Amino acid sequence: MSQQRQLKFGAIIHGIGGSMSTWRHPEVPVDASVSLDFYKRQALKAEAGKFDLVFIADGLFINEQSLPHFLNRFEPVTILSALAAVTSRIGLVGTISTSYSEPFTIARQLSSLDHISGGRAGWNVVTSPLEGSALNYSRAQHPSHPERYKIAAEYLEVTKGLWDSWEEDAFVRDKTTGVFFDPSKLHTLNHQGEYFSVQGPLNIGRSRQGQPVIFQAGSSEDGRNLAAQSADAVFTGQETLEDAQAFYQDVKKRAAAYGRSEEEVKILPGITPVIGRTAAEAEERYREIASLVTVDKALLYLGRFFDHHDFSQYALDEPFPELHGIGSNSFRSGTDKIKKDARERNLTLREVALQAATPRSNFIGTAEQVADRIQYWFEQRGSDGFIIHSDLPSGLHQFVDEVVPILQERGIYREDYEYETLRENLGVPIPQNRYTRRTVNS
Amino acid sequence: MSQQRQLKFGAIIHGIGGSMSTWRHPEVPVDASVSLDFYKRQALKAEAGKFDLVFIADGLFINEQSLPHFLNRFEPVTILSALAAVTSRIGLVGTISTSYSEPFTIARQLSSLDHISGGRAGWNVVTSPLEGSALNYSRAQHPSHPERYKIAAEYLEVTKGLWDSWEEDAFVRDKTTGVFFDPSKLHTLNHQGEYFSVQGPLNIGRSRQGQPVIFQAGSSEDGRNLAAQSADAVFTGQETLEDAQAFYQDVKKRAAAYGRSEEEVKILPGITPVIGRTAAEAEERYREIASLVTVDKALLYLGRFFDHHDFSQYALDEPFPELHGIGSNSFRSGTDKIKKDARERNLTLREVALQAATPRSNFIGTAEQVADRIQYWFEQRGSDGFIIHSDLPSGLHQFVDEVVPILQERGIYREDYEYETLRENLGVPIPQNRYTRRTVNS
Repeated sequence: MSQQRQLKFGAIIHGIGGSMSTWRHPEVPVDASVSLDFYKRQALKAEAGKFDLVFIADGLFINEQSLPHFLNRFEPVTILSALAAVTSRIGLVGTISTSYSEPFTIARQLSSLDHISGGRAGWNVVTSPLEGSALNYSRAQHPSHPERYKIAAEYLEVTKGLWDSWEEDAFVRDKTTGVFFDPSKLHTLNHQGEYFSVQGPLNIGRSRQGQPVIFQAGSSEDGRNLAAQSADAVFTGQETLEDAQAFYQDVKKRAAAYGRSEEEVKILPGITPVIGRTAAEAEERYREIASLVTVDKALLYLGRFFDHHDFSQYALDEPFPELHGIGSNSFRSGTDKIKKDARERNLTLREVALQAATPRSNFIGTAEQVADRIQYWFEQRGSDGFIIHSDLPSGLHQFVDEVVPILQERGIYREDYEYETLRENLGVPIPQNRYTRRTVNS
Repeated sequence: MSQQRQLKFGAIIHGIGGSMSTWRHPEVPVDASVSLDFYKRQALKAEAGKFDLVFIADGLFINEQSLPHFLNRFEPVTILSALAAVTSRIGLVGTISTSYSEPFTIARQLSSLDHISGGRAGWNVVTSPLEGSALNYSRAQHPSHPERYKIAAEYLEVTKGLWDSWEEDAFVRDKTTGVFFDPSKLHTLNHQGEYFSVQGPLNIGRSRQGQPVIFQAGSSEDGRNLAAQSADAVFTGQETLEDAQAFYQDVKKRAAAYGRSEEEVKILPGITPVIGRTAAEAEERYREIASLVTVDKALLYLGRFFDHHDFSQYALDEPFPELHGIGSNSFRSGTDKIKKDARERNLTLREVALQAATPRSNFIGTAEQVADRIQYWFEQRGSDGFIIHSDLPSGLHQFVDEVVPILQERGIYREDYEYETLRENLGVPIPQNRYTRRTVNS
């Protein structure tokens, strides 16, 4: 097997699409967001392409202005569990919020998914950007951005503690003696913290990969620190190689400051390849998708980054309006970037909205060109791999059929899965049980 | 198709077994409680037997004294979702507590399971009997029995409200006009109650069976009222036909008082058939299973009904001890029954413990005898069907292969599934969306 550094791939599956209007394209099945067949087909294609994982995004609040996909879609734990039963090697990663759930329940559900899948579960830890979430969860208010990250850090500590409840060889299961488990290998957490009091133990044992893989997707200061301290992988959005390199270096450096090796945290930017037989055909395909979006839908989409702020009140062809504090407790890194971009490039509201609704991909071209670009970002340390969005369902199939073989040919992407667990395929360490470790060291 | 009243069957799947020591039997795979293969095999066998549903029980607190199966088992939402992907007709019912979860999340997960399975989801609503659960969920204390039922009633109201967020034809999905949904068919709940404030709408639409099927399993006064008011089916434990008939009449009468028809609430006692080629062989099989339990394990098991009270402090062959208030906030109906039985029949602690740990089934005998007993209970209105426990995994296979054909022959059990959704197979009504109904009536 090649010892060369290898690309990692994830496929985000999001039904009718992660943008405002792709559902209108003739090839998109209108019920894709609630179709098991659709999710299964996409997951099996990604698995045929030897992807490390599929990724299911999530949110906890909708209103009439939400993206069509958000209005009527599968909940991540359920669809990932269903996919676990019909796939065999691909990792299963889903978004779950630490602001509106209980660590005992989430530790259980993820560990259960990890057992069902034979060690392929992953958790994208988010703190929920949308203010409205509080209204669905009997809360007086949405916690502030810094507080959400404090909660998340403690939540992760509890969850990882619960996952260590049972040491690897705790279950003796000796039918002759009647000894089911070794009580010295059962550990009660007794966590008493600022936000959570959780006694434990967890009512499920250690999985084949030790613990589910931890993803983090926030790019704010708080998000980067949480990732550097606790995550195995970061799902990020970076538009240029320079930005990607800066982000990559920054997170790896922060991880080192927490005493972790660079290899322990994988950086996986999300990209949207658009592939054609010629560069012109790819360009045409991108334009076809972009043209499905009307300006009013684009304004709604933009509003999503600003707590559903109503942008229809401003003139479309005037400079992007001053927003002051609006959106500051939401997608922090996203809103900052939009404002900075508008200011620096002197964009009108129309330009900002259309760009937000259908951002122009950096990965448009022939399969060869897309492969080149991927290889270049990878070798220039802009990433350790990528999460592949496809605007249209066929995008994933094209990528697997046309781009993957080129990368395999070049020796920078696997021909087949090396291992059975997500951690091992992704190349992140299997965490030792804290109690087992202590015994070994003492 | 026969118009005769038809038996309904569920199969409870619980890995290494719902009693203290069956895992020691040679035929039980020691990892069954965390084996997808095992759950899949059992679910497919139940489906081959045209069962209405599989049933996954649950609990939120363990300690060293817990049943082996409870220490290391799948979480219900995840294993049911996995089974949804590998079965096609059987219902998927799981236990979820209303005392330690959020209605928005549970409404979503169950609706998502309902979509994944094409309308086969069910929810066994429990309030969590174990005091210790509070310690795993950052709560100062476990709510009292009456309060738990007040919470459950409001929780169910919220959940059913969220399930009506989208009317059946709300999603227009017209690619030409770009209209994705009809805003007049989207409804925001705005629930403000004593325990929950939930705005909505839910971010998933109505499923093929309208709403997941509601099970209730508590037999206390509060439990019966909740069932009569809000449940589609009741999972109960009744030892004698007389008890079963009294319970059956009582719940149906209470349902009528809430303005519901008798047919709208199915009563399904749990039974444990033990089948042999002769009655003597069946009896021997029962004794073999019972003999696996030692007295000390039986005391632990008994303790479970009394908040893990330590029964080893009492003399084994003296009368069952006076316990006063112990266990009063736990499995209310279970503890009352044990105490009453001990008093009336003058039992020793040893007798009570062994009987609790391996209760003698009323359904032991040849396949013909078991079928007779089932038919008799059914015809005498002790039940509308049964939830089949099997002490050993082979018990379900024997039941399907040997008892089911007899009941089919007699015309009181389906030869094949009549419908595709759980509600329709079970014969409980598909609830109309409250807003659709209002429009029709006005």
